[in-house]
Amino acid sequence: MRIALDAMGGDHGPAPNVGGAALALASNPDLTVVLVGDQGQLDPLLAASPLPAGRVEVVHAAQVVEMKEKPAEALRRKPDASVFRAWKLLAEGNVDGLVSAGNTGAVVAGGVLSRRFLPGVHKPGIATVMPTAKGRCVIMDVGANVFPKPRHLLQYGAMGSVFAKHVLNIEKPSLGLMNVGEEEGKGHELVQKTYELFRNSPLSERFVGNIEGRDIHRGAVDVVVTDGFTGNVVLKLSEGVLEFVVGLISHEVIGTLSAERDQAALALKTLLAKYHYSAVGGAPLLGVEGVCIICHGSSKDKAIASALGVAALNVRVKLNEKIVAELAALPKGDE
Amino acid sequence: MRIALDAMGGDHGPAPNVGGAALALASNPDLTVVLVGDQGQLDPLLAASPLPAGRVEVVHAAQVVEMKEKPAEALRRKPDASVFRAWKLLAEGNVDGLVSAGNTGAVVAGGVLSRRFLPGVHKPGIATVMPTAKGRCVIMDVGANVFPKPRHLLQYGAMGSVFAKHVLNIEKPSLGLMNVGEEEGKGHELVQKTYELFRNSPLSERFVGNIEGRDIHRGAVDVVVTDGFTGNVVLKLSEGVLEFVVGLISHEVIGTLSAERDQAALALKTLLAKYHYSAVGGAPLLGVEGVCIICHGSSKDKAIASALGVAALNVRVKLNEKIVAELAALPKGDE
Repeated sequence: MRIALDAMGGDHGPAPNVGGAALALASNPDLTVVLVGDQGQLDPLLAASPLPAGRVEVVHAAQVVEMKEKPAEALRRKPDASVFRAWKLLAEGNVDGLVSAGNTGAVVAGGVLSRRFLPGVHKPGIATVMPTAKGRCVIMDVGANVFPKPRHLLQYGAMGSVFAKHVLNIEKPSLGLMNVGEEEGKGHELVQKTYELFRNSPLSERFVGNIEGRDIHRGAVDVVVTDGFTGNVVLKLSEGVLEFVVGLISHEVIGTLSAERDQAALALKTLLAKYHYSAVGGAPLLGVEGVCIICHGSSKDKAIASALGVAALNVRVKLNEKIVAELAALPKGDE
Repeated sequence: MRIALDAMGGDHGPAPNVGGAALALASNPDLTVVLVGDQGQLDPLLAASPLPAGRVEVVHAAQVVEMKEKPAEALRRKPDASVFRAWKLLAEGNVDGLVSAGNTGAVVAGGVLSRRFLPGVHKPGIATVMPTAKGRCVIMDVGANVFPKPRHLLQYGAMGSVFAKHVLNIEKPSLGLMNVGEEEGKGHELVQKTYELFRNSPLSERFVGNIEGRDIHRGAVDVVVTDGFTGNVVLKLSEGVLEFVVGLISHEVIGTLSAERDQAALALKTLLAKYHYSAVGGAPLLGVEGVCIICHGSSKDKAIASALGVAALNVRVKLNEKIVAELAALPKGDE
């Protein structure tokens, strides 16, 4: 299979993208990577560390969307940016998927502009995987759709479930709606109406109802459904609290030890590596034709390789076919 | 000064409320506590551990709002519930403030129904204090107003600032708007319009703009402004991530030590006690006449005592007078 990699995307330029491609090619024998980016910058990198012959192609793109650039402006001013060129390859059927660590808004905008949504999809959303006390859960949406309608959230529940089942291997994923209290009727109109949609849908038997912020990491459900604004805050806040707590414990607990201080520091480092986003493999934009994986802007080789691996896996398990089938079983919904 | 305590509020009934009152009376010589609740349950508790004569009163209330009860129904069905009776004492000028660990929705509903808002206030909101890498920050709102208007958020910024200045002693509190990215124009209509209001208000010199989820615990700003839905998720998620990370570290780091395991476990326990909500003192509902402090439902003696202490402090520093003055300087706003 062929995956396009936005070779210019991310905070660190093309180097970690080329490095990540090398790692991914080594562990995915069925993979070909199409590096999309500035040929002048890519050629020396490829010359310095050659990738397997016949399994790497370069497609030149003259422009790059900066990390802080407004997506709408970038779409207008930089039609030949690497990320949009990668979407074009996908739209033309030249690749099966794309991976980008670039400006998330631009990745999403490229996909939304292409309008090549899967049959029945109202609006794509970004799913992300988070660690919990019981394993892992999927949260959707985490930023593509900051002011969704109830019918979008219903579809996110369905798409997140398919991802949880076929990629995380959770046989019957339970679903929860992010809210400010567990009781029915809590929250604003969006969640109240969404709650009703879930209760009256084929997903109702796996829908546990509302969940609260503290339930996510307890592993209360396998799939957390939320609007892209709240989901984005959840994703970044989790990162911030982790950083804060680890900083405190490093200083005020591990720092006070003597004989076993190094041992404790090493155990903490090992633990953090296990839960680092680079091990997760990026966040899929679900609901579009083909596979799209969005990586953290600060991704290095390993994170890019994980994302290419997840993209390949999503193609292999025919995730989109399963999403289309699941959505077909849902009520259309006017909300 | 006189503070009413909803003696029936919380998961543990009247005992921790009476215990908390005892602690608060010992450390606040100017305080009188009015215990509002079922006299039949309170009398034996007071007989078993007498409180300082002349500084405790009991006002009988025959009903209790359950923790899971819908606030609107409770208001209709239980007019003589302890929390509503406490609001009545406040409305009558019988007390200067109230503290409750009961059903948060009912506490807020009692205050909103009383319609005794401070002059100029559109809608009250709940502020909460969170620890950060640099000290503490205030987040407002965390649940009173789940679908606010931009002008509500502007006022939350002003009220949160006054609280940060006069209660947390932060001379010139910086303000940030919770969003999904730092750049202007990010997010949905509510935050876009709120951003404009801040930029064109007297608060603009202290308004740093949008902040993201990961900025809160880094201490990027002193006051985080957000809608009650997002704020509630932030509050509970922070609790959940802390619990998750501490659980992992206890098991996978401290649990692997031998000679210094007990020492590390004790240091962790001390650290957690320092950051436990019981040390924070509850969350003030700002914007109402009088002082109202909302406590965690699982509050025990120490948390109730902290909340009574904060209520007394808010009265002492004349927080409401300062809020009224700050709001008077703001544009009225149609949004």
